Amino acid sequence: MASSLVLFLANILPLFSDGSPQAANHLLLHHNHQLPQIHLLRPQSGAGGSHVPGLSCLSWRLGVETNNIIGWKTIPQECEGYVGHYMLGHQYRLDSKVVTDEALLHAQSLNLPNDGKNVWVFDVDETSLSNLPYYAQHGFGVEPYNSTLFNKWVMEGEAPALPESLTLYSKLLSVGIKPVFITGRSEDERNVTTTNLLKAGYHSWEKLVLKQSSDSGKTAVEYKSDARKNLEENGYRIIGNIGDQWSDLLGTNTGNRTFKLPDPMYYIS
Amino acid sequence: MASSLVLFLANILPLFSDGSPQAANHLLLHHNHQLPQIHLLRPQSGAGGSHVPGLSCLSWRLGVETNNIIGWKTIPQECEGYVGHYMLGHQYRLDSKVVTDEALLHAQSLNLPNDGKNVWVFDVDETSLSNLPYYAQHGFGVEPYNSTLFNKWVMEGEAPALPESLTLYSKLLSVGIKPVFITGRSEDERNVTTTNLLKAGYHSWEKLVLKQSSDSGKTAVEYKSDARKNLEENGYRIIGNIGDQWSDLLGTNTGNRTFKLPDPMYYIS
Repeated sequence: MASSLVLFLANILPLFSDGSPQAANHLLLHHNHQLPQIHLLRPQSGAGGSHVPGLSCLSWRLGVETNNIIGWKTIPQECEGYVGHYMLGHQYRLDSKVVTDEALLHAQSLNLPNDGKNVWVFDVDETSLSNLPYYAQHGFGVEPYNSTLFNKWVMEGEAPALPESLTLYSKLLSVGIKPVFITGRSEDERNVTTTNLLKAGYHSWEKLVLKQSSDSGKTAVEYKSDARKNLEENGYRIIGNIGDQWSDLLGTNTGNRTFKLPDPMYYIS
Repeated sequence: MASSLVLFLANILPLFSDGSPQAANHLLLHHNHQLPQIHLLRPQSGAGGSHVPGLSCLSWRLGVETNNIIGWKTIPQECEGYVGHYMLGHQYRLDSKVVTDEALLHAQSLNLPNDGKNVWVFDVDETSLSNLPYYAQHGFGVEPYNSTLFNKWVMEGEAPALPESLTLYSKLLSVGIKPVFITGRSEDERNVTTTNLLKAGYHSWEKLVLKQSSDSGKTAVEYKSDARKNLEENGYRIIGNIGDQWSDLLGTNTGNRTFKLPDPMYYIS
């Protein structure tokens, strides 16, 4: 242990020995002595609509990624800069690569029957394709979701691949695991989604499952669970399942193992 | 959007437009130009025993907290300093507070029957009690788990509370939700665990469930699922469930909602 850590430990341990909420609050107040700016038109936090004074954007992001913070509509106002820098910087890509590396290690660790029934479920938005060019123009999630503007962007069919997912896709294909895209995009976006996926480098897949009118009223968890159940009922083995939302990964028929890509920009229930 | 972000976007977007794995690899190679030091006696990474060149400790921690990196025995050698500073610094406490704040918001949002059957499941180690004083003396998880030394520490009964969990505990009690501790500690540690919990400020609870000899051979997920099932079969409603390990939160009878506290020091299957 580095000697600086020993010193730090000596300073911090009394707080833990005390163990009181007061000590914790004192620490937090001390750390967050700057109150967040109040914006007249927006709530101070999008985390479940609740007010979170002195929010740490790092803690908020970890809370989102671990599914502790759920049901939020927009990112906290004071975290726009933080989320923007994260998404455009190295860390988002490094964080994504750790996930896809683990996914590939998992796939390679299995001894799979060679019967053409091994599939890997990919979500589309913020998993296979990146809408970062759109979100970078719209406050990285600080603006409430605008379906008109977002659908206009989708119809352009210009979303780039998330490079780490494209790498995973290629390597899975090379070991005989076929991709199945399951997306919350609707059936009337099939053509543009197909064109966009091809343009981004996804050249072949077993299925592209989009939301049907019969799926309206389902939550994302219900819709995606039903789609995966349908796959398994058709004899497919879901070797892995990757998405940026917990609603891609929870529910039933989740597959052999799930992988959560980072997404601090929006939340889908 | 801040103008520096616009500039950053202009620099980064070509990588995304390209979207190729090569571009991603180039970025990663550039970022990780310093190779990690090779230690003769230890593997370079404890992540599933696999070699992870140029690991980002931030990404490793996020991967662990999101359950993307599983089954690891020790933290990566090169992340000892990072994990130590994280655990002893403000961020671990801030991250914990976001989780317990969300847990309390959840509890307060419910309209519960006042029949004495509302319980909240708390894990013990790294949830209710903190073993940080022990781990700070043992490399923050870089040393392989040593049951002899760890049990000696447990038998001292001197673990402090994680202050954020103690705050949650007190507030849950004040709204009529009773704590139930479910721990992987064994029945022969009941006395010292009771004494330690009381000393740390946990003054009352509905049950303290420890591992029985009949639980041997069960995974942590199986043991904890069975313990929660037993609670529900006895008429209790599990309003919430908080732990530092995913094995505290997965399985069956998981409760109304689960909350994952940070723990980058060890992994329990």
